[in-house]
Amino acid sequence: MHTVTVALGARSYRILIGDRLLPQLGPACRRLTLGTRCAVITDSRVGPRYAPHALRSLRQAGFDPTLITVPAGEPSKRLATVARCGNALAAHRLERRSFVVALGGGVVGDLAGFVAASYLRGIDFVQVPTTLLAQVDSSVGGKTGVNLPAGKNLVGAFWQPRLVLCDLSTLRTLPDREFRAGLAEVIKYGVISDASLFRRLEREMPRLRRRDPKTLAGIVARCCAIKARIVSQDETESGLRAILNFGHTIGHAIEAVSGYGRWLHGEAIAVGMVLAARLSQDLVGLPPDEASRLTALLQAAGLPVAAQWTPAQQRRLLTAMLHDKKVRAGEIRFVLARRLGAAEHGHPVPLDALRRVLASAQGGCSTSHGSPH
Amino acid sequence: MHTVTVALGARSYRILIGDRLLPQLGPACRRLTLGTRCAVITDSRVGPRYAPHALRSLRQAGFDPTLITVPAGEPSKRLATVARCGNALAAHRLERRSFVVALGGGVVGDLAGFVAASYLRGIDFVQVPTTLLAQVDSSVGGKTGVNLPAGKNLVGAFWQPRLVLCDLSTLRTLPDREFRAGLAEVIKYGVISDASLFRRLEREMPRLRRRDPKTLAGIVARCCAIKARIVSQDETESGLRAILNFGHTIGHAIEAVSGYGRWLHGEAIAVGMVLAARLSQDLVGLPPDEASRLTALLQAAGLPVAAQWTPAQQRRLLTAMLHDKKVRAGEIRFVLARRLGAAEHGHPVPLDALRRVLASAQGGCSTSHGSPH
Repeated sequence: MHTVTVALGARSYRILIGDRLLPQLGPACRRLTLGTRCAVITDSRVGPRYAPHALRSLRQAGFDPTLITVPAGEPSKRLATVARCGNALAAHRLERRSFVVALGGGVVGDLAGFVAASYLRGIDFVQVPTTLLAQVDSSVGGKTGVNLPAGKNLVGAFWQPRLVLCDLSTLRTLPDREFRAGLAEVIKYGVISDASLFRRLEREMPRLRRRDPKTLAGIVARCCAIKARIVSQDETESGLRAILNFGHTIGHAIEAVSGYGRWLHGEAIAVGMVLAARLSQDLVGLPPDEASRLTALLQAAGLPVAAQWTPAQQRRLLTAMLHDKKVRAGEIRFVLARRLGAAEHGHPVPLDALRRVLASAQGGCSTSHGSPH
Repeated sequence: MHTVTVALGARSYRILIGDRLLPQLGPACRRLTLGTRCAVITDSRVGPRYAPHALRSLRQAGFDPTLITVPAGEPSKRLATVARCGNALAAHRLERRSFVVALGGGVVGDLAGFVAASYLRGIDFVQVPTTLLAQVDSSVGGKTGVNLPAGKNLVGAFWQPRLVLCDLSTLRTLPDREFRAGLAEVIKYGVISDASLFRRLEREMPRLRRRDPKTLAGIVARCCAIKARIVSQDETESGLRAILNFGHTIGHAIEAVSGYGRWLHGEAIAVGMVLAARLSQDLVGLPPDEASRLTALLQAAGLPVAAQWTPAQQRRLLTAMLHDKKVRAGEIRFVLARRLGAAEHGHPVPLDALRRVLASAQGGCSTSHGSPH
């Protein structure tokens, strides 16, 4: 088992990474100072498979859990679901010392985290991420939130978990497309801060795609360690933490313009990273061969690296970017990479450069996802 | 003008108290590090009267405000309104440096505070309380939140304002019943931590009820100073801050059982304090004459001090108290006063003692509000 610590003073916590860890959930919670009553929030896809194990482990450790299952998928990430979960917590009489367990992927983690952050003005919570994306990214660092009609993640809180438990065996049942989407965030860590991780991914991608347990354990732990270090230095994204958004400004716009659900987050981020690398070439001198290596690695991971957009669609993408919450004083700022392993945040990008790069996106590579409508 | 500082390290802020302060809103915000775009959230009762002044002051100081008006009354304190406000903030392109101004009473402050706490995972906000209750209590200390069907304030956040601006002249237009309800919290401060304030209230109640500006200024400033001191010592209510809930466990139950809106919060708290004082006599030796002085002062303030409850209603009150979020491990804990000016939190109260006191509530005093149905 790998252990990574997120160092945040009194709010520090551990990430446990290993095979078949779910039966350890109860004992691991027991080692923290948590109340007896708790709620496991999961979704209709993960719940049937893993919730019974989570509940059993919690009960055996002396906890009194209730189960809340929300429909699988992004539409559950909204305030109406927060209200539904809050009512269920109240019905099970959760108190200030009670806690919430998020059992599922990014949607469940973001939702359950915000439920915990806001119920009784904040109770403890534990992340049990069951997708690659959630294990290496969204479960670590305390970003929680839900969507509004006006945009994704517009309502939320910084609320750190007390524990993150990554059971790698839950990844075995993950559909291949979702696993590949998770690899986009894995590759991102290499680009933004760890050239040796990037090289390792170039070597080990085939083994990783086969979900070889040992390879997986090492890679997930490495990604968590990078994220933990960044979050420890800048918990609320006043600076450094923004580098985690490499590829995300364009990626979010792709998701928004194409209607959420058509592209998986990781797929949109993959294309976003290719374009951010192109901007990095133009604006901060990323060597062309390094940009090519990024494209090649994303392709090796089975991810899209280009898309076909009409001029009207390009305009919609630009408009969406101008609405992104990373916009400051109306100027679009990007995370750019000077070289693999070294990204910098806060680069203002002229609209013209952005238009050029969007127009160039219809690269030679085909994608299984088509254009954003 | 009186100035009170809430000392919370980097999150410290000032409470400005004075007559005709609203035109100072813009300049006062200017002295803080706030973005240009902002939103004034108010309600349909306060907005028509005061929002134009707030907007003008903000515009003259160089800000770009938008106005969001919610229906007056408790039903606006819910997640659907948070969503509506969040969408409006997004439409006005509020960014991370933008801020929210809460212009109104407790409902608006709690709602707008939670909107600010959760929009983009937290942006700045400024409280401009326009009721006595909000000026002496709810606008100070960072408790924000909304109701769920399952209960009041079940969803929220601790989120401190950057500034509280109490314009005493806004109290002149407050309906008398609401002004009197605010006096319940004023009296509470005397009971929990300031015997000399209590004596001053005994002397000055007639002048206070006439809303004499100088008397009002002194009393509001004194209450804010007490609350500021308590909040500075225990921001998130892990201990001491709980004494602010004197009278509130029974008061909340009265509100819940009678249907919100029938009793004003302050009226329910007044009866709650009389009964908490009776419990204090029984359990921690509050002298009977001091309990009588509390009843007399509440009556002088024009507040109810008793209510008629059937045995079935008493049972419902007890059940409601067992659901209160101050309950821990199923035990009801109360704030009790050993003497006027000295309250202690966390006293476990046997159900029998509570039943006895509820049964005794039908005192000789009539009330204009009747029984909780």
